[in-house]
Amino acid sequence: MSTKLISENKAFGGYHRRYSHSSKVLNCAMTFAVFIPGNTTEANAYPALYWLSGLTCTDENFMQKSGAMNVAQQLGIILIAADTSPRGENIPDDPEKAYDFGLGAGFYVNATQDPWQQNYQMYDYIVHELPKVIAELNLPIQANKVSIAGHSMGGHGALVIAMRNSKKYKSVSAFSPICNPCASAWGKKAFTNYLGNNTDTWKQYDTCELIANNLAAKLPVLIDQGDKDEFFPKQLNTETLNEIAQANNYPLTINMHSGYDHSYYFIASFIKQHLQFHWQFLQ
Amino acid sequence: MSTKLISENKAFGGYHRRYSHSSKVLNCAMTFAVFIPGNTTEANAYPALYWLSGLTCTDENFMQKSGAMNVAQQLGIILIAADTSPRGENIPDDPEKAYDFGLGAGFYVNATQDPWQQNYQMYDYIVHELPKVIAELNLPIQANKVSIAGHSMGGHGALVIAMRNSKKYKSVSAFSPICNPCASAWGKKAFTNYLGNNTDTWKQYDTCELIANNLAAKLPVLIDQGDKDEFFPKQLNTETLNEIAQANNYPLTINMHSGYDHSYYFIASFIKQHLQFHWQFLQ
Repeated sequence: MSTKLISENKAFGGYHRRYSHSSKVLNCAMTFAVFIPGNTTEANAYPALYWLSGLTCTDENFMQKSGAMNVAQQLGIILIAADTSPRGENIPDDPEKAYDFGLGAGFYVNATQDPWQQNYQMYDYIVHELPKVIAELNLPIQANKVSIAGHSMGGHGALVIAMRNSKKYKSVSAFSPICNPCASAWGKKAFTNYLGNNTDTWKQYDTCELIANNLAAKLPVLIDQGDKDEFFPKQLNTETLNEIAQANNYPLTINMHSGYDHSYYFIASFIKQHLQFHWQFLQ
Repeated sequence: MSTKLISENKAFGGYHRRYSHSSKVLNCAMTFAVFIPGNTTEANAYPALYWLSGLTCTDENFMQKSGAMNVAQQLGIILIAADTSPRGENIPDDPEKAYDFGLGAGFYVNATQDPWQQNYQMYDYIVHELPKVIAELNLPIQANKVSIAGHSMGGHGALVIAMRNSKKYKSVSAFSPICNPCASAWGKKAFTNYLGNNTDTWKQYDTCELIANNLAAKLPVLIDQGDKDEFFPKQLNTETLNEIAQANNYPLTINMHSGYDHSYYFIASFIKQHLQFHWQFLQ
């Protein structure tokens, strides 16, 4: 793998860097971003937080809009922001170019259906390939101190990935996650296309199903949700998750916020609390 | 004037609102954004800070990327972000659609040349019309407690407008401003088109010329500049401003920052200091 630095911006005393690399898992060139706190030496390594974005996003939205770098510099956390799907002219996309499927909408699954399975392997990309690519950069990361977070589709991805790989992640948090994609219009469209009609194959990518079927490892979970979110509750099913977690004695925190919507203005308003949450478990 | 609320997002406990209105000065519909701190009552009015953006920007860049709302909520400051030019299908644009002239590049001047003078009156729009539109919204603003700031082309605009209208503004600050547009390629192109070939008419819109000709009223001025800015020093002429200010005993502070570039990552890194700077003079 040859990973190339494509840009660097000094920010808050640290560095925001974007890299491109050739992904074997996704069969295409991919871009990701990293924030490295300033005043870093090799002897001074930091824990890392992966960020998974929502529909239509790239690695850029979180770094530009969330305000997370400011807090990450203060706490000493490396941020890693991934893209949301394979990319490129040769990558199959929704025939109608809808925003909720195909490019920008990988849903963090391993597709099993044609033509998607050649590229849409975002679960393996996030869990296995990207951490190896990051490791090869020799950033000052404490390799065993990693957490994961995300927004909307990326909140879904973070929850599923963390609950299925709890040895890899110390904690997980999500803003406005798609909690029960098997029951939402977004999820049904994506899973039917990527995974086929057998809905049993969908459950491994559904936070509610993982908890209900006792397949979700326990780790610290923080969820924040606005009650003026234009996709709440229909696409997100936050209440279903709350009920299933209670019924199965699965501990998690869901904070409802009056007046907040689905936008990055909501994320920016509470990102500090999320980074502080992860920080507790990354010591 | 009928001003319409087109969106509202709760952010940091306050509200980010976008409005559209019909501008008489610019002969077109315009959009602007306001941040109003939370827990506001009519008896609890706040000072206001205008923000003027740089080339290619709209009202959105600052609100989404600067992190300013977070600080404005903490200090209790209303933010007002304007667009950077007249807008619409009927508005004349650079024939080559260049980023540095025409749409998105009004340079905060009153154009005197055809076809620009029908719409490109951004100086009057910012100084006179927009404050009237804001006043009619009955926001909890302390009308006599107003400052102004901006970035790049908007830093130029903020400096020129404040130095020529010091009774309207308590203080001015700029990130990476175009300090001497009469001497920069950006400024020469814009001023030739908007103002014509008589360079004497340009000087009223040039910070260095205003100070050199004793036409700049004294008020608190803060400027921040990164030394890895891709437009520094050629388009920005920061050192010329520094020399002219010293030669004319015009007090201002220019902070140079090692490693920072021209992007919003630089603005976000120091926006807190700028709001705190203005806050001192808005009490």
